[in-house]
Amino acid sequence: MKIEINPPYLILLGDVKNSDYVKTGLGIVQWSRELVAGQLRFNDCLIDMGVPDMSISEALEHGVKSLIVGVNPVGGQLPESWWSVIEEAARSGLDIVSGLHEKLNNHKGVVSAAQKSGAKLIDVRSPPVNLPVGTHIKRQGKRLLTVATDCASGKKYTALAMTKYLNQAKVDATFRATGQTGIMIAGEGIPIDSVIADFISGASELVSPNNNEHHWDVIEGQGSLFHPGYSGVSLGLLHGSQPDAIIICHDALRTVSFEGHSLPSIQECIDIHLTMGRINNPKIVCVGVCVNTSQLSKDQRDDYLLNLENITGLPCVDPLIDGCEKIVKYLNGACK
Amino acid sequence: MKIEINPPYLILLGDVKNSDYVKTGLGIVQWSRELVAGQLRFNDCLIDMGVPDMSISEALEHGVKSLIVGVNPVGGQLPESWWSVIEEAARSGLDIVSGLHEKLNNHKGVVSAAQKSGAKLIDVRSPPVNLPVGTHIKRQGKRLLTVATDCASGKKYTALAMTKYLNQAKVDATFRATGQTGIMIAGEGIPIDSVIADFISGASELVSPNNNEHHWDVIEGQGSLFHPGYSGVSLGLLHGSQPDAIIICHDALRTVSFEGHSLPSIQECIDIHLTMGRINNPKIVCVGVCVNTSQLSKDQRDDYLLNLENITGLPCVDPLIDGCEKIVKYLNGACK
Repeated sequence: MKIEINPPYLILLGDVKNSDYVKTGLGIVQWSRELVAGQLRFNDCLIDMGVPDMSISEALEHGVKSLIVGVNPVGGQLPESWWSVIEEAARSGLDIVSGLHEKLNNHKGVVSAAQKSGAKLIDVRSPPVNLPVGTHIKRQGKRLLTVATDCASGKKYTALAMTKYLNQAKVDATFRATGQTGIMIAGEGIPIDSVIADFISGASELVSPNNNEHHWDVIEGQGSLFHPGYSGVSLGLLHGSQPDAIIICHDALRTVSFEGHSLPSIQECIDIHLTMGRINNPKIVCVGVCVNTSQLSKDQRDDYLLNLENITGLPCVDPLIDGCEKIVKYLNGACK
Repeated sequence: MKIEINPPYLILLGDVKNSDYVKTGLGIVQWSRELVAGQLRFNDCLIDMGVPDMSISEALEHGVKSLIVGVNPVGGQLPESWWSVIEEAARSGLDIVSGLHEKLNNHKGVVSAAQKSGAKLIDVRSPPVNLPVGTHIKRQGKRLLTVATDCASGKKYTALAMTKYLNQAKVDATFRATGQTGIMIAGEGIPIDSVIADFISGASELVSPNNNEHHWDVIEGQGSLFHPGYSGVSLGLLHGSQPDAIIICHDALRTVSFEGHSLPSIQECIDIHLTMGRINNPKIVCVGVCVNTSQLSKDQRDDYLLNLENITGLPCVDPLIDGCEKIVKYLNGACK
């Protein structure tokens, strides 16, 4: 009942000229290079993700199974020139995977081509149907959830980085995706913010199923308990995940959200998450804070993180600069 | 963008033999008698809601606009004999309003009859489309939200009772419905647990729009922050409602939920709701506790409520036995 994407991928970049529009494609290459066979670029494309260029027929020769629309066009609308390529791919039997607002199923040419070839059309914004209500039965294996003081504060990045550093430390760990880009990176997942409200925690349970006793699921958080627009998604995901550990994500310079409401202190954020998380996992602990310090000078950064460590008693890092070894070490001690 | 039901209603009871299956119909008659023209009963019906019996043709003569399917049949399935009556009503131009799991739009005869007559088919479990994301802009007027330690703890009853007692005290107040039975009682509303997760708070904002400065919207709560299956719905509703006041609802004898997780203390329930509510309404206060004490003896009940008043410093009542005057009085003092 998850979305599942067949690798290897061919990532469609089309005529993209600005890397801001290719965050999804670049994210897949950065975190899941092994899933990617190549990129499909038009002649006037200005971006190169450093993977082999391939036409659709070359991709078929390389055993590619899915064409990934790895761009975020302004307004979510693709130019017509792209659709003919997508149609060709569907006709050739490649599954088409898209995170566009414009649904693949609304595009007649693509639907008809896919029907003839048997290709699947996968909109990663559309959740699976027949999701269950949460059971809240304790599942085997360990779970880490990334949470935040606000939206867009590095929850996906932190979850991906923690998975990498856990694996490097020989801890068995899997990244679990709950948003569209994460799903393309992981090759599976459920877009939690798109499910019916009654099924948020039930869908979250499916994202991190039973596993080996010492295995860690590292779950991509969504929204924030402190962002009134998406707090319901965040709380349902917290309760469905039943995490043993959380990591707080925060943007160092943000004291007010984009929408103008004030943000909690890190300690308040920790306390509320632990209080709410204890409802169905009394053993929940916070194992660290990941801060985006990209706007601070080196000295400011060091002061900021040291001060935060003194306040919280937890490892506090900028994962992009410091990595996550300190948090992995703390986690191994705190969650035996 | 709310569901809207045209009165007066004809409530279909069919051949119902047990009042447990008529809670919706009885609730409408109890709280919104003015919306109800009559009831439609088959010969072998054993329930009488004390309103005039009417056939469909008689209902049309009385100006009835909507046929309400006011039963909760076992498994949500209606017998075929009922569908012929519903079809007749649709053919006559009555809107059909249903809270059944079986969607009206899946019943070809009803759909075809409604298309010919122009009658609307209203499934109160189906939210309106094109709901917005929450803006969290402060709206004019005052808002009260009923919240609870667990699901099924009297939130709808308390909201309806508070509306009645506020009106009796000459305070301008409107019940705002967020669930299917509430929507039939109010004649409008949005089933908050059925909306897409991203739009929980946006839909909640629509439920209680701008109003006069001294007007109270009394909003029907859903689920519980402490029920991990539905906590996301509850938090989204809290943030979308931006309540100035909350009332805690609780079942006196319940210490563990139906699903086995432990419940918070009343004080803990108050504290968490105020902490989360303050995020977008710093003035939020708790104005009382409504307890279902039906399983306690008179002495136990008095002790329980007195003890709770001492702990919380708030008026604590069983609304079914004591009414809500004490809470209305406290509210008038606390939320000037």
